[in-house]
Amino acid sequence: MDSSSDHSPSASLHSPGDVHNVKFCQWCGSPTKHEIPEGEERLRAICTSCGKIAYQNPKMVVGCLIEHDNKVLLCKRKIEPSYGLWTLPAGYLEIGESAMEGAIRETREEANAEVEVISPYAQLDIPLIGQTYIIFLARLRKPHFSPGPESSECQLFSLSEIPFSSLSFSSMVVTLSLYVEDMNAGGKPKFHYVTINKRPGTSASDIHAFTLDHHMQS
Amino acid sequence: MDSSSDHSPSASLHSPGDVHNVKFCQWCGSPTKHEIPEGEERLRAICTSCGKIAYQNPKMVVGCLIEHDNKVLLCKRKIEPSYGLWTLPAGYLEIGESAMEGAIRETREEANAEVEVISPYAQLDIPLIGQTYIIFLARLRKPHFSPGPESSECQLFSLSEIPFSSLSFSSMVVTLSLYVEDMNAGGKPKFHYVTINKRPGTSASDIHAFTLDHHMQS
Repeated sequence: MDSSSDHSPSASLHSPGDVHNVKFCQWCGSPTKHEIPEGEERLRAICTSCGKIAYQNPKMVVGCLIEHDNKVLLCKRKIEPSYGLWTLPAGYLEIGESAMEGAIRETREEANAEVEVISPYAQLDIPLIGQTYIIFLARLRKPHFSPGPESSECQLFSLSEIPFSSLSFSSMVVTLSLYVEDMNAGGKPKFHYVTINKRPGTSASDIHAFTLDHHMQS
Repeated sequence: MDSSSDHSPSASLHSPGDVHNVKFCQWCGSPTKHEIPEGEERLRAICTSCGKIAYQNPKMVVGCLIEHDNKVLLCKRKIEPSYGLWTLPAGYLEIGESAMEGAIRETREEANAEVEVISPYAQLDIPLIGQTYIIFLARLRKPHFSPGPESSECQLFSLSEIPFSSLSFSSMVVTLSLYVEDMNAGGKPKFHYVTINKRPGTSASDIHAFTLDHHMQS
């Protein structure tokens, strides 16, 4: 994950896409007004001078579920949010890279590991916070990994050892639960699409306060 | 698609995520500077007064590939870009909705059709323009459709009739090509992940100026 709290997943939880937070035009600096543009249905921040609309859209978080010797690689977070909790290597997708390239980059940054992506594994939408997780199955190119600047530890866990009570985000609970189910079913992992509906009013740190909707497999 | 040209896919093509376009802080209105923040690796627009960073991230476009009587539903665009060309119903994902909900909404807006999503079908990343398409297979709940405000026609096409020379975007060429291949192979459609690498310097309207990389199926 990016080290800036502004760019961290939890930051979005506080005010995801609240159009009223956009008070000035980023292009010309004039104040914005908040109206529904003609032909649209949603409130937008519109520049009172140049008329440009500041659209806000969901962000993609990309990461890798790395398989090695029947274990998976997790990183312990050395940054907020969810300091000290375990996560798959993951972070915000940047403009100019594909989701796959972003997931490989985040793995390099957080676990000093070079991975080869095997297949897409899951898309997890979290509408309430305007995030979509895109997770790939991957394998280590060499059996080397170590904590990057944002991690305090990196460790391989067998399926029965995955620290479900110490995971960082709902998305990680869901991804790893689906993976354990797939593996216990003995089959090849499938592609999963799910919606994680966080219960409004619950804390971002309550990673079990959600319902799982629209689960589809391919 | 959204009717505003600022929010249209092609608008992004002109300056996707060019950090220098962000000249003012949207939160406090002060001028920005353009630097690599400490601990990061990319140039960002940073407020010279409040210090906030204006992150720019890729946008998701969500849509439906609607199957009906061995045909697929396409819409002829009545708006720019790609006025007069054929597309799947698709548009930008909004904060607060899942990709599936967004795809259903866009289909309602562009084709006045109520659909049921069957399964995730494809993720197509276009790094050069900072876009990711998420396409679902869907079916009509009732056999009714008609052009919405942004479409001049909606029509069912058999696989051999798909107007490949009159499609609106590279993403549509790729999605429909994969679908025809899947159908001709006689099998159930698979989930596809691909990267569409647009050739730099080519026109947005040259929908065949790309290479298809990292094609993976689940």
